[in-house]
Amino acid sequence: IQSKLPNVGTTIFTTMSQLAAQTGAINLSQGFPDFDGPQALREAVGHHVMAGHNQYAPMTGLPALREQVARKIARSYGRQVDMDEEITITPGATEAIFCAVQALVRPGDEVIVLDPCYDSYEPSVELAGGRCVHVPLALPDFSIDWQRLADALSPRTRLIILNSPHNPSGALLSRDELEQLARLIRGFDIYLVSDEVYEHLIYDGVRHASVLAHEELYARAFVVSSFGKTYHVTGWKTGYVVAPPALSAELRKVHQFITFCGVSPLQWALADYMAACPEHVDELPIFYQAKRDLFCDLLAGSRFTFTRAPGTYFQLADYSAIRDDLDDVEMSLWLTREHGVATIPVSVFYQSPPAGLRLVRFCFAKREETLRQAAERLCRV
Amino acid sequence: IQSKLPNVGTTIFTTMSQLAAQTGAINLSQGFPDFDGPQALREAVGHHVMAGHNQYAPMTGLPALREQVARKIARSYGRQVDMDEEITITPGATEAIFCAVQALVRPGDEVIVLDPCYDSYEPSVELAGGRCVHVPLALPDFSIDWQRLADALSPRTRLIILNSPHNPSGALLSRDELEQLARLIRGFDIYLVSDEVYEHLIYDGVRHASVLAHEELYARAFVVSSFGKTYHVTGWKTGYVVAPPALSAELRKVHQFITFCGVSPLQWALADYMAACPEHVDELPIFYQAKRDLFCDLLAGSRFTFTRAPGTYFQLADYSAIRDDLDDVEMSLWLTREHGVATIPVSVFYQSPPAGLRLVRFCFAKREETLRQAAERLCRV
Ligand SMILES: CSCCC(=O)C(=O)O
Ligand SMILES: CSCCC(=O)C(=O)O
Repeated sequence: IQSKLPNVGTTIFTTMSQLAAQTGAINLSQGFPDFDGPQALREAVGHHVMAGHNQYAPMTGLPALREQVARKIARSYGRQVDMDEEITITPGATEAIFCAVQALVRPGDEVIVLDPCYDSYEPSVELAGGRCVHVPLALPDFSIDWQRLADALSPRTRLIILNSPHNPSGALLSRDELEQLARLIRGFDIYLVSDEVYEHLIYDGVRHASVLAHEELYARAFVVSSFGKTYHVTGWKTGYVVAPPALSAELRKVHQFITFCGVSPLQWALADYMAACPEHVDELPIFYQAKRDLFCDLLAGSRFTFTRAPGTYFQLADYSAIRDDLDDVEMSLWLTREHGVATIPVSVFYQSPPAGLRLVRFCFAKREETLRQAAERLCRV
Repeated sequence: IQSKLPNVGTTIFTTMSQLAAQTGAINLSQGFPDFDGPQALREAVGHHVMAGHNQYAPMTGLPALREQVARKIARSYGRQVDMDEEITITPGATEAIFCAVQALVRPGDEVIVLDPCYDSYEPSVELAGGRCVHVPLALPDFSIDWQRLADALSPRTRLIILNSPHNPSGALLSRDELEQLARLIRGFDIYLVSDEVYEHLIYDGVRHASVLAHEELYARAFVVSSFGKTYHVTGWKTGYVVAPPALSAELRKVHQFITFCGVSPLQWALADYMAACPEHVDELPIFYQAKRDLFCDLLAGSRFTFTRAPGTYFQLADYSAIRDDLDDVEMSLWLTREHGVATIPVSVFYQSPPAGLRLVRFCFAKREETLRQAAERLCRV
């Protein structure tokens, strides 16, 4: 059989997590916590499974959960969204992004992605018959290179995929950058997918500049988030997408035939927990900043160089002072096999990695002892 | 925004379930049980959520669950499948079908579907750039019309979607029919998606003729099933697909970018329960046949006419003796509003419904009291 996705292998996340398991390395590669979600949230799942909430959820998501999401959005970004017309619960943010792309992109359309970017964007666009135009972010801070972005626009541009806080770098888009983007695409028939799955993981007192808080951009946007990231339960595969009514309607047409709906008892449990504990999201920056700072403080004793991630649960580190002879894939394998710490190479997030890129990504969504042990090993490298 | 799926509205299942809720009608429309899954299975979810199984499952599914599926397949159909290379756990059978279609269908390809058929097939094909060729099943027994199927084949035929036991009719494909299909497509580059989500819901002592038990067909097939249907937990949205290694590899390339993986704690719980209770699937025919027979015995006192469904949890009924002036959509609305029983019209499963079709579908996956109450109302019509 001829492949529809000939360039696609197994994702780097699967590959590295498997290698970590095989070698017994500490797994700082694939992004997931090694601690658990809130006890009350997990107990609520057991409750709803026993209480009989085990049949299909509504296609758009459980109303009680959409209501909580609407409240959270109002609290966090001051926007009133219509829970019935603008919020759709999905089986994970990846499905939300896939559905948005399928709803928008027609054969021959171009989609601008900002490299490095998450590995699902390009196959999603290709399966819709579109083509990705890769615009590299400016190094070293992974900010938008406005000239290159402007040059990449064409009459075929249908969609731009944004991601802030940014995986793998942790970089944030500012309100000013959103404003600049709005000016750039004003008057063009261009849509946005804004991947904001790390929206609540932002440090140093900075506030997230969500597309939800930008009137003009939101009018043409699908804003995607993830309960898995926010509530430490990546294996629950539950996310949501917020979009104006006409865009939500198109997304739902696709979603109802891809998965139909998300998992009922998890939606009930999330609704309960969000209602009981709205402050969870406010406490996340402190919780994760402590982890970032612990890891970075310890890593300061190593020969890796880095600037602290402004957001996400990922920390990039430059290893050129250690093994400049290895490319980042080789370095990741070497660190995993020889030093017992699994990482993600950054070049895999690029179509054409910049020459001499010497960056690996560590996930710091880990218990203090895991971070200490990993840092100890990394300081010996 | 111009729609990618201009002909698609809200699915009939959502529409009718909403109408049932609004009017207080007994909901025999959308297919789901009004009773719960096994207590031990549900308790296992609570256990695994508390035991910390809340992060990403492997992309292909939890090994323990794939192992149980392989065992079940060996027990049920005598086939040894390789759990690592041939089984993929998916967030529901709908996603499995979507992924199989995306993995196979290229722009311009034709896909043969046998009408009446499930409503997700055609949009899945369209989103892949393909085109559905609709071949009506022969009435009154919904068997394959071999002449029409042969006539529908073309050099562009890429895929045939089978569904046995068949939704909405409950009809079964026999081993002989599989054999005839094998002869028909022998030598052509045509693949199969075999939607067998009701594989364990078969009555009157008949055994399921699975594509898994047919060597030649399986070599080119994706066989799809659903834990939701088999374990009475449709809201868990967990299914699986079995295919030869090369086909599974292509399906996984797509699956890993659409949803990445299914829900971890549900997969753990299903694996436990299947290991502890392999006889669950053997008891299902008796369990559901009792429901079918109760419902049909009671309905015999009405003016509906029918033959008992050989499989699935759906029973068709002809209402031409009652209201021949109404088409089946009108009849479903009338039954829901005026008689308090929500049903699904059969014409919505067709591209071109046969003239004068007077069939509605009742879901009998309901408690005895629900079936009694519904039948009582239907006898008064
Ligand atoms: C779905 S596996 C990838 C998890 C993740 O988002 C990452 O590690 O970047
Ligand atoms: C996903 S809702 C549809 C349920 C079902 O399979 C049916 O009612 O036919």
